[in-house]
Amino acid sequence: MIEDISIRYLDSFQDKNLNNPILIEGLPGIGQVGKLVAEYMIHMLPAEKIGEIHSIYFPPQVILDETGIARLPRNELYIFKTEERHIVFLVGDFQSTSNEGHYILSDAYLDIAAELGVKRIYTLGGFGVGHLVNEPRVLGAVNREELRTELEGAGVIFEREEPGGGIIGAAGLLLGLGRMRDIDAVCLMGETSGYIVDPMSAANVLAILAKLINVTVDPTQLNARAAEMEKVVEGLIEGEKLQHDDELSYIG
Amino acid sequence: MIEDISIRYLDSFQDKNLNNPILIEGLPGIGQVGKLVAEYMIHMLPAEKIGEIHSIYFPPQVILDETGIARLPRNELYIFKTEERHIVFLVGDFQSTSNEGHYILSDAYLDIAAELGVKRIYTLGGFGVGHLVNEPRVLGAVNREELRTELEGAGVIFEREEPGGGIIGAAGLLLGLGRMRDIDAVCLMGETSGYIVDPMSAANVLAILAKLINVTVDPTQLNARAAEMEKVVEGLIEGEKLQHDDELSYIG
Amino acid sequence: MIEDISIRYLDSFQDKNLNNPILIEGLPGIGQVGKLVAEYMIHMLPAEKIGEIHSIYFPPQVILDETGIARLPRNELYIFKTEERHIVFLVGDFQSTSNEGHYILSDAYLDIAAELGVKRIYTLGGFGVGHLVNEPRVLGAVNREELRTELEGAGVIFEREEPGGGIIGAAGLLLGLGRMRDIDAVCLMGETSGYIVDPMSAANVLAILAKLINVTVDPTQLNARAAEMEKVVEGLIEGEKLQHDDELSYIG
Amino acid sequence: MIEDISIRYLDSFQDKNLNNPILIEGLPGIGQVGKLVAEYMIHMLPAEKIGEIHSIYFPPQVILDETGIARLPRNELYIFKTEERHIVFLVGDFQSTSNEGHYILSDAYLDIAAELGVKRIYTLGGFGVGHLVNEPRVLGAVNREELRTELEGAGVIFEREEPGGGIIGAAGLLLGLGRMRDIDAVCLMGETSGYIVDPMSAANVLAILAKLINVTVDPTQLNARAAEMEKVVEGLIEGEKLQHDDELSYIG
Repeated sequence: MIEDISIRYLDSFQDKNLNNPILIEGLPGIGQVGKLVAEYMIHMLPAEKIGEIHSIYFPPQVILDETGIARLPRNELYIFKTEERHIVFLVGDFQSTSNEGHYILSDAYLDIAAELGVKRIYTLGGFGVGHLVNEPRVLGAVNREELRTELEGAGVIFEREEPGGGIIGAAGLLLGLGRMRDIDAVCLMGETSGYIVDPMSAANVLAILAKLINVTVDPTQLNARAAEMEKVVEGLIEGEKLQHDDELSYIG
Repeated sequence: MIEDISIRYLDSFQDKNLNNPILIEGLPGIGQVGKLVAEYMIHMLPAEKIGEIHSIYFPPQVILDETGIARLPRNELYIFKTEERHIVFLVGDFQSTSNEGHYILSDAYLDIAAELGVKRIYTLGGFGVGHLVNEPRVLGAVNREELRTELEGAGVIFEREEPGGGIIGAAGLLLGLGRMRDIDAVCLMGETSGYIVDPMSAANVLAILAKLINVTVDPTQLNARAAEMEKVVEGLIEGEKLQHDDELSYIG
Repeated sequence: MIEDISIRYLDSFQDKNLNNPILIEGLPGIGQVGKLVAEYMIHMLPAEKIGEIHSIYFPPQVILDETGIARLPRNELYIFKTEERHIVFLVGDFQSTSNEGHYILSDAYLDIAAELGVKRIYTLGGFGVGHLVNEPRVLGAVNREELRTELEGAGVIFEREEPGGGIIGAAGLLLGLGRMRDIDAVCLMGETSGYIVDPMSAANVLAILAKLINVTVDPTQLNARAAEMEKVVEGLIEGEKLQHDDELSYIG
Repeated sequence: MIEDISIRYLDSFQDKNLNNPILIEGLPGIGQVGKLVAEYMIHMLPAEKIGEIHSIYFPPQVILDETGIARLPRNELYIFKTEERHIVFLVGDFQSTSNEGHYILSDAYLDIAAELGVKRIYTLGGFGVGHLVNEPRVLGAVNREELRTELEGAGVIFEREEPGGGIIGAAGLLLGLGRMRDIDAVCLMGETSGYIVDPMSAANVLAILAKLINVTVDPTQLNARAAEMEKVVEGLIEGEKLQHDDELSYIG
């Protein structure tokens, strides 16, 4: 019988006695903000892959790589060691397709965190505002009051009951379920329209996260991607304006 | 492995030998009538919190409080002691997201009722009629014939097979499943349009419930909220009339 | 923990040694044809109630009777004894709300059939054709080839691979799952538009079923209801014709 | 209690010591391409039936054969012996109705493959391109890099990350889950519009598959069916053109 969730560590990952470890979650979500940040960090540091997670709660399909090799949808674990701590990353293709699956998967992620002795979880996401944002802020949430000050010091904004709809999926449940298990967890959300993949928002989240955990990640490539996207969006807005002017000139 | 449903009593709640206890359920539903009544009572009496319920059948998200602290969706238990009895309240953020979950959660609520020795359950809800109601009545349902007279004496109306669509969710299932377990349960439903949160309907349910269980709850704040809402609704109706008159004057 | 399905026999039903028993299933479905037939037979014979089935696969609600008493959605078992055999009826409020639930419930019905020593199952249903039918036929399906001749002798029609979409729900699964467990089962389907509750179609199914199992059921009341419905439908058709003529006269 | 999945081998299938066996999966999917190929091969070789699979994850209904005999939805296993190997076929009525069911069923198929000692799995499917295709190619995917060369040698095309949406259902999961269990699996996908049952695409897949596994299957009947379908489609296109010309002539 297939397991609901299977977690496999790579053979190369033998020593699970980590130094002051933290977990950074960047799974797919609004504007792909969390995914962009976590995968960019993994790429730039670079972090080393240590494990894979498969689940019947992921979509029932395979994904093809550039050479036609099929693999199951999966989440992945990576690790990077700084002077101060081990950083574990949780990234992947999908979140759960069912409501109950979200809870069961997030609980499994916390099992991993507990097994690795994780002291703090950072979940990353987007905060959809429904319109383009010029200077996207980074909003925060915590699962213990004492964690807020540190985040505010790094420039994270806490708005009264924002986002009002709550934080959906792993980025939220890791805080909620973590609180039940006495694991500290904070969420950083980049403001984003919610309509596009948003490297601009991701760059802001990265800047604050890097400060918080004291790692240096060269933002050049992400900023470049953000600049490109900004041009695309400006083009779209310009196009809309032109069209709007045209319509007005018809009337006038 | 995460539990489907977890029930935790607070450490402060040690003595479970309650005096002649009843349970009042006011979870979210039509017009939020039941939720308004139960939460208002908890606030005004005030009742003391004794426990929390979490479940994978609730939506997979966290909710943020005014200070940015995230918590899982939950239902809560409160208690208040009168001369005659202990009153246990069941309130919360959500009901189940799945059909089966509704049954499983309601059964867990009955486990709580059984554990606490509850003699009678009052479920509170709205009865959606699809149009604004000037003087909303309070309709009733019971899970044992003998319970009806007492309710009728307090002004509860029993209409032939109303609501025709049945009573959905915990407000209904606590009666149906309670009957299977020989726990008396009655449902009070305030008539409501179904379109708005309805403190007017809630005030009527509160008045009857307070009489039935012989507690005094100052209705001033709820009535004030009802009066406010009444103004809003009257404004909407007035606005519609004006618009309608305008349209007629265009034609005329 | 609540059971997925609970089956309770009434205390009055002690002797489960039945004489040559058959099971007639008439749960809700297309045109309510099966439900009409089975409930009419229970009413007219009359059959005696022997048991109830509750399930978390039924809708999560309660149903109110004419006096405001709430009960869970349920299926019911009734029994009637003829000279030749015991007839067990399976009727009820709902079928499953989920795909998997349909299988699990139908398997539980077969457990009942096995426990009671049922020799043959008759499932009743409607066969939706998408238009009004003047003289609705009764179509048949069997789960063993040898069963067909007897049905054809009673006037049941077997059309090549009709209904093409298969037979959905308990009326079908009792045949399919019954075949796996070597329990003979046949399905009688009254042709019906699928748009209305159809006592005309039910009357035809009743006539054939009564012949097949050699019971006398006075069809007067069902025929009367069919006649009423026929008038309603004729009125609708007439109304459509008039409207159509009006439209033509506009053109002409 | 009913099993989620039941696998039954026919009594005639006693000797499970197969010679160098492979498994060909052709379940329903896009353009029914895989189903057409596998069922055509079973018909033409002909292969012998050895087993049946039933599951609560299939739709809750029965299917009627031409004589009115009802049976559960099922998948079937067939076998054919060549000089070089045993070929096991997996075909059937449906795939899973739920996401989780797809994983659980595909895992059960791999249990069968493991039990029978299968060395290689070929899954067959359609690759929907959203428009009519004149000369449909056969695209491939593999679950181990070393498998690609052999397929390319037989004319299978590997396009960078195509299909971009992944391969959904058993045709994909057998590769992904097979990789976890070290069972080699490849997927052959015939390009198809996705709008029609596509024997043209199936004929191309058949030609390549027959070459790969070195069996001779007379394609005459499938080609005839493809030719018929081609006429139908040409008729449709011609009709659209005529209509288009008509519209132009109105304008002109």
